[in-house]
Amino acid sequence: MFKIAVLPGDGIGPEVIEEGLKVLSAIEDKYKLKFDVKKYPFGGEAIDKYGVPYPEETKNACLSSDAVLLGAVGGHKWDDLEGDKRPEAGLLALRKSLGVYANLRPAVLYPPLKEASPLKNELLQEGLDILVVRELTGGIYFGPRGTVAIDYGFKAYDTEVYQTSEIERIAVIAFEAALKRKKKVTSVDKANILDSSRLWRKTVEEISKRYPDVELNHMYVDNCAMQLIKNPSQFDVILTSNMFGDILSDEASQLTGSIGMLPSASLREDKVGLYEPIHGSAPDIAGTKKANPLATILSVAMMLEYSFDLIDAANDIKDAVNKVLEAGYRTFDLGKGIILNTQEMGDKVVEYV
Amino acid sequence: MFKIAVLPGDGIGPEVIEEGLKVLSAIEDKYKLKFDVKKYPFGGEAIDKYGVPYPEETKNACLSSDAVLLGAVGGHKWDDLEGDKRPEAGLLALRKSLGVYANLRPAVLYPPLKEASPLKNELLQEGLDILVVRELTGGIYFGPRGTVAIDYGFKAYDTEVYQTSEIERIAVIAFEAALKRKKKVTSVDKANILDSSRLWRKTVEEISKRYPDVELNHMYVDNCAMQLIKNPSQFDVILTSNMFGDILSDEASQLTGSIGMLPSASLREDKVGLYEPIHGSAPDIAGTKKANPLATILSVAMMLEYSFDLIDAANDIKDAVNKVLEAGYRTFDLGKGIILNTQEMGDKVVEYV
Ligand SMILES: CC(C)[C@H](C(=O)O)[C@@H](O)C(=O)O
Ligand SMILES: CC(C)[C@H](C(=O)O)[C@@H](O)C(=O)O
Repeated sequence: MFKIAVLPGDGIGPEVIEEGLKVLSAIEDKYKLKFDVKKYPFGGEAIDKYGVPYPEETKNACLSSDAVLLGAVGGHKWDDLEGDKRPEAGLLALRKSLGVYANLRPAVLYPPLKEASPLKNELLQEGLDILVVRELTGGIYFGPRGTVAIDYGFKAYDTEVYQTSEIERIAVIAFEAALKRKKKVTSVDKANILDSSRLWRKTVEEISKRYPDVELNHMYVDNCAMQLIKNPSQFDVILTSNMFGDILSDEASQLTGSIGMLPSASLREDKVGLYEPIHGSAPDIAGTKKANPLATILSVAMMLEYSFDLIDAANDIKDAVNKVLEAGYRTFDLGKGIILNTQEMGDKVVEYV
Repeated sequence: MFKIAVLPGDGIGPEVIEEGLKVLSAIEDKYKLKFDVKKYPFGGEAIDKYGVPYPEETKNACLSSDAVLLGAVGGHKWDDLEGDKRPEAGLLALRKSLGVYANLRPAVLYPPLKEASPLKNELLQEGLDILVVRELTGGIYFGPRGTVAIDYGFKAYDTEVYQTSEIERIAVIAFEAALKRKKKVTSVDKANILDSSRLWRKTVEEISKRYPDVELNHMYVDNCAMQLIKNPSQFDVILTSNMFGDILSDEASQLTGSIGMLPSASLREDKVGLYEPIHGSAPDIAGTKKANPLATILSVAMMLEYSFDLIDAANDIKDAVNKVLEAGYRTFDLGKGIILNTQEMGDKVVEYV
């Protein structure tokens, strides 16, 4: 029996999580499975209750689970807290404590949603199916940092730092993923400026020798930010650091025009994973029933696939989502169609599962 | 008599510089001015001749000039050199030695070129006129760095570092620029993660108090990468660090669909400035006469405006470029129209000046 720690979080987090769990139940029924699902406080909710974003109880539960399903965290209410007391600090601590160094963020254009993409249609002829593989537990997110008083004001610093082993393991994830896709890895760095990027490039180059069937090319991050817009269909797998991945995965997802649709998985070697929609907590629409639960529902599908090896069940969910879209059902963010609210969309997916 | 050091550089650099200088001569004739213009080796060309990208002679000339006009540097030929011997190292040393900390990169959609933008037309209704103000002589580009051998492989690091005074002076540039535009500054950082970003945000907040007429908002860099695509007309001035500015200015420029049109200026307090097209050296089209000289010609206009206060002359050039486009003349990169080669486009602008 797989154990799942569920962290609904803040804003629309609990609303979309509800629908994800609904679909998970439908899978339990269909496949006669039983998951051990329990909810724990996390993020702003946990700050309000316990003064910290990632309480011990939650941490213990996550560390003893096979997978963690997260809604979203953060909100204006907690914006003025100090760095290490904010919801985001909880998210970083969660990722680090689980050791989930490989963040997979697919940016896929669903053909029925082509019109929602901000790009001109001629750029979308060949579709858009990019997998961003972002290093998640290293780099400038976790390197030495500080703020010191100087003669005039302050000096503040953060350190981008990578070692060979960290780069090797994330590169392996990217090449393995590419083998199951279009066999192309674009490694993104700023090797014309950064020492850490030069080590990144050299190490990725080394790993690529183990994958003669995968084509590797290197791209500077500034150029990648352009190429994503200019010619997005040139990309298959984008492999990059924590910071660059944060920026480029958001850019890539926006190209699909429907970030409310996009799931993510963060993994380590033993298949334990953290699953979350890539969208934020959207406090402005919380409680209005407008949130799109599909990103969370598709995160559940990723969980079934990557952590539990339940490929058929995962495909059922993905197929159901496709059919719901093809039938013309939409949430508010997706534009024209038969508009459903959060719960109705969850129910509709359950119906097709 | 203003002294201008011209660094043609590599690839298409010398070709576009030729046209920029042609237009500068036309301005000399029209306004009975005389500029002291001399060319110096820089970048790959200088590496080939002297073994270094920024030779003493070039440096002395730049440091004693009122403005530096640069073509573009770099090319595959020099890609395998070590970090500090590459053309890019010369560019960094040039910026640092001149002390030009304020990089202004306008991303403007020329109405006749709307079709060249990758964005759907409905997103361009309100046009697109963004000024990215990028800090250029600090941050991770110049912070402490290194690569050290460890038990297994290497560890490499780079340091993002900012102090109050550096943030203050670039913020002032952004607010002053906003006063002459739509009076809106969006300061971009990653304050939910980085210490340096928190100092950035606090300092910008302080400076903004001196500019009650300018609206200030803060945005995380990942969100900005999305918002640029989702709703580009929300932006007026984007104020950001060296690294984030590198990425976001390239993304913004790509939205116009015509990066061959976009100039840049890098300034310090006393009006001395470095002017360059934002595009690269494009070795693949060097020698084919396909390069678009308009970005360099518009960089000359920025030089006249910012370093020499010759506003009328600057406007003449901008008007001429607009008229040339309206008359249907295009270079290869700009798509349909009466296609001109590099020299013909330079001549055409001279004709309209
Ligand atoms: C909320 C923030 C700390 C986080 C990150 O930067 O990693 C988010 O932007 C993401 O991409 O998951
Ligand atoms: C060539 C490179 C060093 C440079 C930079 O990163 O600053 C370029 O990308 C730019 O934006 O001017």
